[in-house]
Amino acid sequence: MDWNAEIEAAATRIAPHVQRTPVLETTAFGLDRPVELKLEQMQRTGSFKARGAFNTLLSGPVPEAGIVAASGGNHGAAVAHAARALGHRAAIFVPEMAGAAKIALIERTGAELTVVPGEYANALEKAREHEARTGAMQIHAYDALPTVVGQGTCLAEWEEQGLAADTVLIAVGGGGLIGGALAWLQGRRKVVAVEPRTSCALHAALEAEAPVDVQVSGIAANALGARRIGEICFELARAQGVDSVLVEDEAIATAQAALWRNLRQLVEPAGATALAALMSGAYRPEPGERVAVLVCGGNIAPDPLE
Amino acid sequence: MDWNAEIEAAATRIAPHVQRTPVLETTAFGLDRPVELKLEQMQRTGSFKARGAFNTLLSGPVPEAGIVAASGGNHGAAVAHAARALGHRAAIFVPEMAGAAKIALIERTGAELTVVPGEYANALEKAREHEARTGAMQIHAYDALPTVVGQGTCLAEWEEQGLAADTVLIAVGGGGLIGGALAWLQGRRKVVAVEPRTSCALHAALEAEAPVDVQVSGIAANALGARRIGEICFELARAQGVDSVLVEDEAIATAQAALWRNLRQLVEPAGATALAALMSGAYRPEPGERVAVLVCGGNIAPDPLE
Repeated sequence: MDWNAEIEAAATRIAPHVQRTPVLETTAFGLDRPVELKLEQMQRTGSFKARGAFNTLLSGPVPEAGIVAASGGNHGAAVAHAARALGHRAAIFVPEMAGAAKIALIERTGAELTVVPGEYANALEKAREHEARTGAMQIHAYDALPTVVGQGTCLAEWEEQGLAADTVLIAVGGGGLIGGALAWLQGRRKVVAVEPRTSCALHAALEAEAPVDVQVSGIAANALGARRIGEICFELARAQGVDSVLVEDEAIATAQAALWRNLRQLVEPAGATALAALMSGAYRPEPGERVAVLVCGGNIAPDPLE
Repeated sequence: MDWNAEIEAAATRIAPHVQRTPVLETTAFGLDRPVELKLEQMQRTGSFKARGAFNTLLSGPVPEAGIVAASGGNHGAAVAHAARALGHRAAIFVPEMAGAAKIALIERTGAELTVVPGEYANALEKAREHEARTGAMQIHAYDALPTVVGQGTCLAEWEEQGLAADTVLIAVGGGGLIGGALAWLQGRRKVVAVEPRTSCALHAALEAEAPVDVQVSGIAANALGARRIGEICFELARAQGVDSVLVEDEAIATAQAALWRNLRQLVEPAGATALAALMSGAYRPEPGERVAVLVCGGNIAPDPLE
């Protein structure tokens, strides 16, 4: 598969519907070197998920029954938004752990919303039942090609904007975003996968040499709490190699506070997870190594303006 | 005076100390055309004020007695931060209306802080007494050349980043930021001065053909609540011409909510005031006119992470 051609085609396809998110270089965190950031939490519906959602809906016919998705919150909001923008029905299944702020975000799109007790995997089960019953098209949150290709446009855009870093740090949940990044970069830059110790499906899979189930909890669980890493991501990570590092919930909270206090960027814990690896020393770059951090989600709870 | 040479020199002088703030183009507000934004609320201490503060401190010798400033909050935080960064003492006088979030921001810098009953003008009086008593150097919040020249670096930077707009909308308090913008642009682009109807010192001065005192109140008063427009700004505005428009507090709150909901940028009311003019129709661009909005401050109260 020619990933770069697929991702370039996706970028053209989704361009009218997504935000070209800004980038900057900063020394605001007091680290020993500048950091490049991409503010992808400024994307439509507050996370990179809008890229994969629009790419999927624009890649082929959508059935009359519409779309169905399971989501910790951000993917559901993105799918619901994309469906409305393109005139399709959407049924979204969300686990209780998504929280009130993300549930309200999805409700505002007018999608048919079902809150399911438990975690992401429970919502996915309900979404699959809906798919079987209605013929709606399932949009997987991370383990489907059009999703991963759509997320890959984020790194393609960043390179077009002049990304200079040797190394890009990316938070990992189910692996859609980092899968897209690995697919686009093809080893041209180092990728560091950052997971909370409390939700580390990729780390566990790399140790076990196969995707395995993990327990998920912690402050970023409603965005990064996939029970098992996606196959697409796992194959890319195994083939290309990634550095996999874990961060504590406290380090995530510290990075989240730094993004607000030092740059006035208010993000959810998942959005601060990659930065946490640099600030805490979980990832220590070599002398001269230029680093970049992808800020991926901003749907913080509670919503500060509610 | 060669404003452009002065502003270019200031940009070089302050570069190691300030954030080069990101820019973007967006259709996220559902307006009839794209809008260019500069996210200057990401500047050190959360507003453009850091530019003028560093420029002043780096433009000449600073007395042993240090620095004194009066401020609605943002200027005080910027001066206190710049003083600490450069190793000077700072005494900051803040009116009660600055509010707890801005007062805490200044306290964190370790500056000597005095909270004065009343509004900005009352704090300025106390700062002048301190200056006379101690020999400290007064840094005026908006009506001093090094301040205005420093703020002018914001527009210089934006043009370097590829600003395309015909028209730039800028919120006005005492006139430091728009003064710097007018000084830099020298009529090359149209500038729209946006003030809350509840704090409109420039609008009143343009009507009276001279700076006059106004009453200040409303949701942006702790940032835009100057009782009288600065002479430097007034002369530039009169000589070059600006469109002066007023917006209601409600329109400011609507724009503030849109910046959060549609772009995950959480800003204070002053930071949303220029956008409010576009969203409310207080400023209606011509067909084909390209517009830009300067987002100038992010020190919202209450602090969402406190």
